[in-house]
Amino acid sequence: MINKLVIANRGEIAVRIIRTCKKLNIQTVSVYSEADKHAPHVKMADKSYLIGPPRVQESYLNAEKVIAIAKEAKADAIHPGYGFLSENADFAKQCEQAGFIFVGPRSQVIQKMGNKIEARRAMKEAGVPIVPGTEDAIVTVEDALLHANQIGYPVMVKASAGGGGVGMQVVYKEAELAEAFTNNAKRAQSLFGDGAMFIEKKIDNARHIEVQVLADTYGNTIHLFERECSIQRRNQKVIEEAPSPFISEATRLEMGEKAVQATKALHYTNAGTIEFLVDEEENYYFLEMNTRIQVEHPITEEITGIDIVEKQLEIASGKRLNLTQQELSIQGHAIETRIYAEDPSTFFPSPGHIDIFQPPKGYGIRNEIAVGTNYDVTPFYDPMIAKLIVHGKTRDETIALLKEALGQYKVTGIKTNISMLLHVIEHEQFKAGNTTTNYLELYYK
Amino acid sequence: MINKLVIANRGEIAVRIIRTCKKLNIQTVSVYSEADKHAPHVKMADKSYLIGPPRVQESYLNAEKVIAIAKEAKADAIHPGYGFLSENADFAKQCEQAGFIFVGPRSQVIQKMGNKIEARRAMKEAGVPIVPGTEDAIVTVEDALLHANQIGYPVMVKASAGGGGVGMQVVYKEAELAEAFTNNAKRAQSLFGDGAMFIEKKIDNARHIEVQVLADTYGNTIHLFERECSIQRRNQKVIEEAPSPFISEATRLEMGEKAVQATKALHYTNAGTIEFLVDEEENYYFLEMNTRIQVEHPITEEITGIDIVEKQLEIASGKRLNLTQQELSIQGHAIETRIYAEDPSTFFPSPGHIDIFQPPKGYGIRNEIAVGTNYDVTPFYDPMIAKLIVHGKTRDETIALLKEALGQYKVTGIKTNISMLLHVIEHEQFKAGNTTTNYLELYYK
Repeated sequence: MINKLVIANRGEIAVRIIRTCKKLNIQTVSVYSEADKHAPHVKMADKSYLIGPPRVQESYLNAEKVIAIAKEAKADAIHPGYGFLSENADFAKQCEQAGFIFVGPRSQVIQKMGNKIEARRAMKEAGVPIVPGTEDAIVTVEDALLHANQIGYPVMVKASAGGGGVGMQVVYKEAELAEAFTNNAKRAQSLFGDGAMFIEKKIDNARHIEVQVLADTYGNTIHLFERECSIQRRNQKVIEEAPSPFISEATRLEMGEKAVQATKALHYTNAGTIEFLVDEEENYYFLEMNTRIQVEHPITEEITGIDIVEKQLEIASGKRLNLTQQELSIQGHAIETRIYAEDPSTFFPSPGHIDIFQPPKGYGIRNEIAVGTNYDVTPFYDPMIAKLIVHGKTRDETIALLKEALGQYKVTGIKTNISMLLHVIEHEQFKAGNTTTNYLELYYK
Repeated sequence: MINKLVIANRGEIAVRIIRTCKKLNIQTVSVYSEADKHAPHVKMADKSYLIGPPRVQESYLNAEKVIAIAKEAKADAIHPGYGFLSENADFAKQCEQAGFIFVGPRSQVIQKMGNKIEARRAMKEAGVPIVPGTEDAIVTVEDALLHANQIGYPVMVKASAGGGGVGMQVVYKEAELAEAFTNNAKRAQSLFGDGAMFIEKKIDNARHIEVQVLADTYGNTIHLFERECSIQRRNQKVIEEAPSPFISEATRLEMGEKAVQATKALHYTNAGTIEFLVDEEENYYFLEMNTRIQVEHPITEEITGIDIVEKQLEIASGKRLNLTQQELSIQGHAIETRIYAEDPSTFFPSPGHIDIFQPPKGYGIRNEIAVGTNYDVTPFYDPMIAKLIVHGKTRDETIALLKEALGQYKVTGIKTNISMLLHVIEHEQFKAGNTTTNYLELYYK
């Protein structure tokens, strides 16, 4: 049983987790940096601890401090949210060793999935299709050239330890490979302390489709269908929807089954997401596994009626999943748009003072927000300030509701991407469901 | 087809209707009194017309002015919302005669259901159980005494033309009847221009359970299950939920079928609600039919995924219902709480300036609101300023979510009933589903 939970995060996800804890009568402890003194997650938690200065390395990434706070607060569990320490296997291990329940999978699984090469190998063993590419870490330009020629151009050069697009580059021909490889390996070495790279086939007009899984500690594993998250800027998701407007019912079933199969093979526990690249013929290839709750989890909650944070806490408490695959069905359609404090033309962050912040209200609308009227957005953290989730009966209805909801949004004092989001969802290509990962390059200029 | 709609209402329901119009690409025209110049429904509509001074008789109840505005705006339809002109058969008739689509049933049906005695007779003919009582209008004290003795005390004395508790009184013994009857008849005569009364059996520990129906102009009729609206103060609903925590599946089915049967017998069209009193043995008796959208319609939308305003507009446009009873099922549980600008101990209205208005956000929360930060609540209209609707998987989860959501609510500058709502939903009797219409008298002191 979890009685008191430390939330090692900030922003909307910290607020989101606190709300489910309140529902479940779990005491909450939040941590905050000096920049977040007035943040909502601080006010909402039962108790809050200052963790350090604004810089993330000294605050939200400070694993030792989080554990020290958990001890002082006499908490029994730690929820890492997303980002920050959430996929840090060492942190999960430290939690385990200090006797705290880490709300997530075991540290070994986090480690395995955090290493792209190991993850690919594990998925291949579990019978999940993977993108054609190198199986071992590549460290020399010679090896890189050899493999790239075997795979065929265009290829992707990817840092084994990277994520969210960092350390990734498309290479269209042999002449460009050496430089791309060397530069990215160098960057990966300095950023992650690991210069190992791998090379894989670049899938054209690909879509990013991911399957949400839940697994308890007794081996009961289910999936909550897929999310399509193809609309990305700089490899960061901007608009996500569930279900995918593209895949057939047969592919949906098959991808769900494969995801469950892989989850079981890994002896994975808690909530996780298996990301796939899907090509124009509905071939799907394992991309990576996220061993944490994801930003876009609410769209799955909307179409299934399941509180994923609640399931995370139940599983972490050692409870059995009280859900079977047969009970689950897709109810309508949901779309999430991420509201960023950024210039919609350059995508550069736009921190500053919010004078007025009025999110939309009404039928079909859910808001996940951790800012408000008369609030400072600091430059220290991710510029995502809110999420707007809309749920309708059909995709068309959901888009219409979303358009109206975005139109209601009122934010003054800082720049936001709301105009860009409206531009995207009003476009014929979006309405037609032609949401490939190069969408913004093609249709937003 | 409806291309341009006049919304002859104000507040949250006007905003609610405008949102669905935007979704459906219907142009909107709002009307506003001098007191509502800065109201959200004015800003959100494509065009707005001043209708008159603050007093409702000179503004929102001014049928001629509404029709004149509809003509000037070249609208093709008028939506009356709830309250105001919504159940005024003369207004519906005027709309019909002026060539406007009235978004509601035909004027004859409104008239019939507006007369309680006629409504009871019609329901009886349609095979719907009615509360034992007089079938004809009673005008003399002698007749009243005769019938009350036949029915057996306690009885309710009710104005035929009344509604929302006006002109209603419980009489416990013969000695009290003459005075109660005379006073209420006199009041009904002065308020409604109709002193006719009827007398019916007072049902002890009754619940108020109502069935939402939808009927198109081709005779296709369905119900959207029931709402339990027993928690009332001064005969005004405060908390509503769907489904009812009390009735069995068999009663649910039977009540739904009876409601559909009655709707068909009346040749009723558009959205409507058949209200029942339900006694401790699950006997149900027709109470009245509301021939309009109801305040509490969102809880039905949450558990069915159906936009009732959209259905109203489709039916009014002459479209066929694209839904069958078999397709419908109850998804989870929903509760609505009405936020009133009122003193929670006296229930007296508390108009004034709202300094801060922060509704809750997140999983399971829907807000219907037409006020905001730095906004004046005038004394001219109903003190309901917002509705909070929460949707969860089970009733227990929904209550827990609601508690958390009400806890998030922040309103300063005026008094609200939020503390009272929290008090009610945290009570063991509410949690146990013991929500009879005398709930507040019994458990809120």
